[in-house]
Amino acid sequence: MKIVVDCVGGDDSPKSAIFGALDALKQDRDLQVVLAGPIKSVQNVLEQEKYNSSRVHLLNCSEQIANDEIPSVAIRQKPDSSLVQGLKLLKEDSSVGGFVGQGSTGALLTGALLGLGRIKGLSRPAVCPILPNMNGGNVFILDAGANNENTPQHLYHFALMGSVYARAMGVSNPRIGLLSNGTERHKGMAMHQEAYNLIAENASLNFVGNIEGRELLSGNVDVVVADGYAGNIALKTAEGTALSVMHMLKKTIQNSFWAKVGALFMRSSFKKLKKVLYYTEHGGAIFLGVNKVVVKVHGAGTRQSICNAILQAKEMAKSNLIENIKELLSTQNSIDV
Amino acid sequence: MKIVVDCVGGDDSPKSAIFGALDALKQDRDLQVVLAGPIKSVQNVLEQEKYNSSRVHLLNCSEQIANDEIPSVAIRQKPDSSLVQGLKLLKEDSSVGGFVGQGSTGALLTGALLGLGRIKGLSRPAVCPILPNMNGGNVFILDAGANNENTPQHLYHFALMGSVYARAMGVSNPRIGLLSNGTERHKGMAMHQEAYNLIAENASLNFVGNIEGRELLSGNVDVVVADGYAGNIALKTAEGTALSVMHMLKKTIQNSFWAKVGALFMRSSFKKLKKVLYYTEHGGAIFLGVNKVVVKVHGAGTRQSICNAILQAKEMAKSNLIENIKELLSTQNSIDV
Repeated sequence: MKIVVDCVGGDDSPKSAIFGALDALKQDRDLQVVLAGPIKSVQNVLEQEKYNSSRVHLLNCSEQIANDEIPSVAIRQKPDSSLVQGLKLLKEDSSVGGFVGQGSTGALLTGALLGLGRIKGLSRPAVCPILPNMNGGNVFILDAGANNENTPQHLYHFALMGSVYARAMGVSNPRIGLLSNGTERHKGMAMHQEAYNLIAENASLNFVGNIEGRELLSGNVDVVVADGYAGNIALKTAEGTALSVMHMLKKTIQNSFWAKVGALFMRSSFKKLKKVLYYTEHGGAIFLGVNKVVVKVHGAGTRQSICNAILQAKEMAKSNLIENIKELLSTQNSIDV
Repeated sequence: MKIVVDCVGGDDSPKSAIFGALDALKQDRDLQVVLAGPIKSVQNVLEQEKYNSSRVHLLNCSEQIANDEIPSVAIRQKPDSSLVQGLKLLKEDSSVGGFVGQGSTGALLTGALLGLGRIKGLSRPAVCPILPNMNGGNVFILDAGANNENTPQHLYHFALMGSVYARAMGVSNPRIGLLSNGTERHKGMAMHQEAYNLIAENASLNFVGNIEGRELLSGNVDVVVADGYAGNIALKTAEGTALSVMHMLKKTIQNSFWAKVGALFMRSSFKKLKKVLYYTEHGGAIFLGVNKVVVKVHGAGTRQSICNAILQAKEMAKSNLIENIKELLSTQNSIDV
């Protein structure tokens, strides 16, 4: 199976994408990659590396979409961008299973929605990143920012998709929580209360009720359902706070001689923790609700995060994630919004 | 100046309240406290302590409001609760400057609004907790949960009140950020975009624009304005993440002999960091927008946090915080909602 890797748009592009792709090839023998981008700069990096050329394909694209461009305009005006061409290949070539990119989130979401189409019966797609929880597991948060404003029906569909996705990622009977400003059933705005009822009514979902931001990383819940606005704030607050705490710890250590001595002994423990916490080391956020597997990696993502995202995209394509979501939606008799 | 301390409703009541009050008396010679609660249980604790009885007053109250009671009902049905009696004393006795409680947040907010009245010209009150930022300073977040749903006018008033409060707490020319799902001006829902315009138009406010959750503790902003729903999620996510990171660090250390050795050297540094991060050690969240100083301490708050909240309440009463908010609102020619 092939995965398209966009070699444009990351802080360290095209190197992060190319090295990440070559790392992934080493870890999965059934994998092939399609490197999409300006061919010369891609070849410049490739030339210095050893790799099996039968597993690395090049998709030459002359255009590039920048982070500050208006997504819908950029998609239309740059048909030869790696984003548009890569998604086109994903749509048309059945040997291609997914797309991994670290450029503009807005452009990727718009491009995927326009180019691949929304899953039939689904009201709204959602971005679903994965954060490490306190118990060594993961938590899936959706929507983390694809939407600005949502309806109860949207949130209900997020719960369905999140549940299928978490299963595909190895969580059995995932516990679903609805992010709110309190745990009681009547918390949140009218929109959230209606969403609560819709999710609770579906007995096939393992719904644990409302959860507060405090529970996000507690490990008491596997899938966090939120409107795009609140989900984005929760995700970024969690990321920012983790970095802030590590920074505070560093500062506290620097102020004490003995703490500095202690920190030397703890170097490998700190490194491990950093690896867990820093989002740049993680895989990507999947874009759930379009007809193919699309994964967004943070712009500051390293080769490691690109590598993880490629392996993740291939796993998801192989696991029939999209087909499973389609099937669930068709059996839910959902009202299309 | 006297401060009323509610001796009911905390996890460790009445001890936390009484010990916190006695600690505060030691730190501020001009302070007097009124301990509100069932007189016998208060006296039982007091009996074993040394204190200057001329500075400790007792307000005997036979009723108690529990956390799970419906606020408006409880306030009406329990006129002899420490909450209702304490707020009444604050309203009627000019020698009393503020109220500190750690019981039900909803009951305290409702009681304060009904008992003390909303400041004239203000559209909505807000709860404003203080979190430590990465640079050793503080960040003030409002509204952190007094409201379920807000209008642009509410958020504009939060910006005004937050600015006055941060100044009273020693921040000169406080930088105000609007919490959103991106930094660009057009981010957020229509409500947030309108709030952006209202805040930006007021040249007396030091408005830095939209901020993401990532910036919450960065130190780049002093006051974070948010609707009550998003503000509550951001606050609790930050608190929860800080605790989760410390927990992960502990776990990582336990897995390594050398890390355990290192941790011994770092004991005092860890303690310092914990003190900064754990909300139970902090003072309280002020309830801005009512006609007197009301401070809510976390239910799990320790004697230390009660002590801090009492000193903070006295400072705020002395600094004419309420008068300054009133003055600012009256000069803003604001539309009352």
